[in-house]
Amino acid sequence: MTDFARTKSLFHLPEGIVYLDGNSLGPLPLAARDRVARLLDEEWGEMLIRGWNEAGWMDAPARIGERIGRLIGAAPGTVVMGDTLSIKLYQALAAALDLRPGRRVVLSDHGNFPSDIHMAKGLMRSIGRGHELRLVAPEAVADALDENVAALMLTEVDYRTGRLHDMAGLTQAAHAAGALTVWDLAHSAGALPIDLESAGADFAVGCTYKFLNGGPGAPAFIYVASRHIERVQPALSGWLGHEAPFAFDLDYRPGPGIARMRVGTPTILGLAALDAALDAWDGVSIEDVRARSVELSEMFIGEVERRCPAFELVSPRCANERGSQVTLRFADGYPFMQALIERGVIGDFRPPDMMRFGIAPLYLDSGDIVRAAGVMEDVLGERSWDRPQYRQVKAVT
Amino acid sequence: MTDFARTKSLFHLPEGIVYLDGNSLGPLPLAARDRVARLLDEEWGEMLIRGWNEAGWMDAPARIGERIGRLIGAAPGTVVMGDTLSIKLYQALAAALDLRPGRRVVLSDHGNFPSDIHMAKGLMRSIGRGHELRLVAPEAVADALDENVAALMLTEVDYRTGRLHDMAGLTQAAHAAGALTVWDLAHSAGALPIDLESAGADFAVGCTYKFLNGGPGAPAFIYVASRHIERVQPALSGWLGHEAPFAFDLDYRPGPGIARMRVGTPTILGLAALDAALDAWDGVSIEDVRARSVELSEMFIGEVERRCPAFELVSPRCANERGSQVTLRFADGYPFMQALIERGVIGDFRPPDMMRFGIAPLYLDSGDIVRAAGVMEDVLGERSWDRPQYRQVKAVT
Repeated sequence: MTDFARTKSLFHLPEGIVYLDGNSLGPLPLAARDRVARLLDEEWGEMLIRGWNEAGWMDAPARIGERIGRLIGAAPGTVVMGDTLSIKLYQALAAALDLRPGRRVVLSDHGNFPSDIHMAKGLMRSIGRGHELRLVAPEAVADALDENVAALMLTEVDYRTGRLHDMAGLTQAAHAAGALTVWDLAHSAGALPIDLESAGADFAVGCTYKFLNGGPGAPAFIYVASRHIERVQPALSGWLGHEAPFAFDLDYRPGPGIARMRVGTPTILGLAALDAALDAWDGVSIEDVRARSVELSEMFIGEVERRCPAFELVSPRCANERGSQVTLRFADGYPFMQALIERGVIGDFRPPDMMRFGIAPLYLDSGDIVRAAGVMEDVLGERSWDRPQYRQVKAVT
Repeated sequence: MTDFARTKSLFHLPEGIVYLDGNSLGPLPLAARDRVARLLDEEWGEMLIRGWNEAGWMDAPARIGERIGRLIGAAPGTVVMGDTLSIKLYQALAAALDLRPGRRVVLSDHGNFPSDIHMAKGLMRSIGRGHELRLVAPEAVADALDENVAALMLTEVDYRTGRLHDMAGLTQAAHAAGALTVWDLAHSAGALPIDLESAGADFAVGCTYKFLNGGPGAPAFIYVASRHIERVQPALSGWLGHEAPFAFDLDYRPGPGIARMRVGTPTILGLAALDAALDAWDGVSIEDVRARSVELSEMFIGEVERRCPAFELVSPRCANERGSQVTLRFADGYPFMQALIERGVIGDFRPPDMMRFGIAPLYLDSGDIVRAAGVMEDVLGERSWDRPQYRQVKAVT
């Protein structure tokens, strides 16, 4: 049984704060602080260029990819770190379209994260082969699969509502229609059990600054099923994806396996912080995390519905259809969230009217949940959100 | 007059080391250590998600881009940070080809860095419009410009030989032929005066871990001339390049100006270290740096030629035709460099037989140069490099 009191002690949580925004940026793991200081002092500072060999910087994207792989049910050698989720999504979708040359449709849903849709459109425009994006409602995805679909590109957990797609079922349906799948695990990795291999997923990508607590702008990951990787000619063919980067050959030959999805020189600071953040998962069962997330989410929904009837639950009521967040609708959600944050309960807001609360059992307990609901009730009752300063929209919401 | 004793004091240089590999990875600026610790403790740790607004994380790519812009002669609002050099090069070249739709040749030289060539080939393959890469000798570039050339893509300073291209002259020649230019400043930024605006450069990209000392895998930059930027439809159209990222609109509308070249969530740890590293340039004249680099390089060449006649100078003898490195040819260059590093003089090796020595006046003085040459003479005389352990090739060379 996972010891959640222990995992909570691994994070720095500011005094007086209940942090319900780990679905956007996880808190600082204490180990990351130490690991980054060591990177600067003992590695970059003392080893200088030798750090690429001696401190293992060059292998970090593959080594950390293996650590992530274990959390998402990926076979060894199928995950590598680098770049951002948007870049990795681009590579995955480009590869999927290459593998289905006779088909012209990318299928997604309008709950997908905008960057995925933007990157897909940019790719389709660049390659200029007449691809079209078919965007449907989340619940209409399966019915929209047909013989024209090259790739089904979905985010497993909706970033606004928390609605959870059936990865195994939709992957099977996509394959039955002859399409490949590209799964975005931004809100899934570290939040719930994922089994890419048994689901038969073809490609997957994700970020590591949400439930994996890697820090602001932490590097992304990409998964390519081993049955496809040797046929992938990476669209972004950088030198570190080359078979022999240090031969400095002008002919591009993709590296063995997943290594070919690497592009340029990776951020070693970002990888070091992430590597330390992943230590929090040692001895942790993702099934336990999921069970605890459901328990805390149910408690949060119950408390909020009892105390704040003005809020409407947007997330699916059934826990099996939900990721690890609870989203509530409120017309004045934006100023309400600003007022709530000022009172030490941090969630976030997504237009037009959705307040999101991330439930991360590694560092949240039932005391936090009850306290958050209590503050929400107070702020709502006092109408303290209804002040001009809370309506001022910030650059980042 | 720049105070180089002061700038040297801003870096951590390990005891007993002469560091001549700052053209590959600059040393640790003491300020970066403090800045990153503050980012972790006071920003990520205490502000959590609020850091994006309150600590200015969201604006860091533009703000730091302005700082880089001043070092490369770029007008305000034309430089932004993000991703890696390979990704930024891809964006720049894709934009250049879009702006010259009737032309099908990308011209480069075979001294260009392999990743640039690989990325260009990957782009041409992806867009599938029949582009070809014309690779010529560095000295044959001007003559190879013709009415078919869409983009002239060059690295200003050759990563192996240190040969310096005439940016202004070649840009003028490219424009006369109707082509656009994409300059890679990897070995130029922070090494010598660059004036993108007077040269009339169209696009430029660079990394920041070499002469700008931003740390391993520090973020890259991209420059787009202001006359082009509003016509650029980014090939990698990520959410942070959107006009209004936090509107979460599924329609992509490029952001104003250079902001549209942003892609995904940037590495805040990497940006923080770089930001601090750039402090070393406050009060520094790049013309002084160049004059001092030439002086130290001439001294190094003179000392080495006197003490080590077995080495052949590969870099141009004329300082005006050289970047800020000296490259020497030696058949046993690989084991020699390993033995030299073991004796505390750090340079690097590029196949088949080139030993590179970076000259970075911010933290190198004439004492370092003389000492390095003395150790080189000793190692050569003792033939101590001629041992099996030095011939073992490491992953990263």
